[in-house]
Amino acid sequence: MPNPSQIENRLDAACNMAAQARTLTLPAFVSGLCAENKNETGVFDPVTKADKDTELLLRKLIEKNFPGDSIVGEEYPNKIGNNDWSWCLDPIDGTRAFVAGVPVWSTLIAISYQTEPIIGIIDHPALNERYIGALGKAWRENDRKRTPLKTQNCTRLNDAVLSCTEPMAMLSSGQLAAYEMIRRTARFTRLGLDAYAYALTAAGRIDLVIEAGLAPYDIQSHIPIIKGAGGAVTTWSGGNAKNGGAIVCAGDPRLLEQVYPYLQRELDS
Amino acid sequence: MPNPSQIENRLDAACNMAAQARTLTLPAFVSGLCAENKNETGVFDPVTKADKDTELLLRKLIEKNFPGDSIVGEEYPNKIGNNDWSWCLDPIDGTRAFVAGVPVWSTLIAISYQTEPIIGIIDHPALNERYIGALGKAWRENDRKRTPLKTQNCTRLNDAVLSCTEPMAMLSSGQLAAYEMIRRTARFTRLGLDAYAYALTAAGRIDLVIEAGLAPYDIQSHIPIIKGAGGAVTTWSGGNAKNGGAIVCAGDPRLLEQVYPYLQRELDS
Repeated sequence: MPNPSQIENRLDAACNMAAQARTLTLPAFVSGLCAENKNETGVFDPVTKADKDTELLLRKLIEKNFPGDSIVGEEYPNKIGNNDWSWCLDPIDGTRAFVAGVPVWSTLIAISYQTEPIIGIIDHPALNERYIGALGKAWRENDRKRTPLKTQNCTRLNDAVLSCTEPMAMLSSGQLAAYEMIRRTARFTRLGLDAYAYALTAAGRIDLVIEAGLAPYDIQSHIPIIKGAGGAVTTWSGGNAKNGGAIVCAGDPRLLEQVYPYLQRELDS
Repeated sequence: MPNPSQIENRLDAACNMAAQARTLTLPAFVSGLCAENKNETGVFDPVTKADKDTELLLRKLIEKNFPGDSIVGEEYPNKIGNNDWSWCLDPIDGTRAFVAGVPVWSTLIAISYQTEPIIGIIDHPALNERYIGALGKAWRENDRKRTPLKTQNCTRLNDAVLSCTEPMAMLSSGQLAAYEMIRRTARFTRLGLDAYAYALTAAGRIDLVIEAGLAPYDIQSHIPIIKGAGGAVTTWSGGNAKNGGAIVCAGDPRLLEQVYPYLQRELDS
């Protein structure tokens, strides 16, 4: 295991990086609110530039402060380092939310030691909320105020608030059938949240997130936050979530046993 | 037509009411973020109390200031007034968002003259944004800053950003088939927004909202805002949207001609 000061150093650096990333992402998001950004022949996509600029900024800061660490990001090739640490970046998660003016988009930063994510940040610039998991704990920061995160007890699927960003677009027809069985059993569903669904699960407001087709950079940051808040996140077959794919996240780990049978029937088909 | 000062008086009063409603709704929303509000035997639902308390507050303020006006609200029986004015209230639109901790829920206030909505307010307390339509204009207020709203030009369905709060839960199977045809043709879809989808359409970020099963208090406030920003909102068959039901809202009115054939095929079936 790494020593605590190595973790603290990287956690502090990651929080500073998230703050600096806001200076690039937030103006691009707000300016879209008044830009005439479509024309007859095509679509101007402000998110692409903000996405790439932000990842470059984050990579520069990592390389300056931790030159031996590896880096995986959405927009640029992997950097292979020479130590046990690696960073996984999604400069703008929820690009569709970003384009549509919905403030739930985020910047995701995960840090792994020997391939296991142990530090995670979900930063929501437009909501001025940062969700952090590290050292077995999870908390939300809002300006200088720090609030511990704890998932909700929820032992019955009937009581569970379910979330999925976009079932019809992200799930195959077999996966959608499994999801529909769970949706009809759950208390109610809330869609369209991207990483914010996981943040709200850590905060005890959502009980269950079921998604598929996720990349590693879509999920690694969430793992230390969900675990630190008392929840669990796995693949649909119960495996390690760190490589993405079909993912289920439960605020109360006991819920997993109730949804695995639906999810795994789909996997068997 | 009413004289402009009658409209201005009611608009000012409605904005003040929305501000006062925030003092009841916002603490209930925020406190849910840390409350242990579930147990083995049932679910404590903070939204119900906030919903009812807020509607009572709004009704009292209307009755005090405009005793002859009619009032329709989600939670209490209709009040029949003795003049041409009527108010239509939804104290918390997006109750599921409210419970799940998603800040897009809103307070809706519509004011009609001789049954046509001519003043509309969508107030988003947790986002500190208020969308207003009246006197043929629409604008957003954020603290004291006022920004005019204008919908986006979008003549091709392929370029359109589509929204629907929850297709599988709010649409019948025939309606869902029509929606799916449009979804596969549109640029991309953003779900889970309730009234915020209409606000973002007025702001030029979303192009098309397609929903069904709406009540009058779910839609009347949006009409003056969408029209004032340059958009159009009708039923799926092209009728007046004020009574709710199956609703289509377009930032660019020319989009309607492209989606009516899909929507009306469903109505014919």
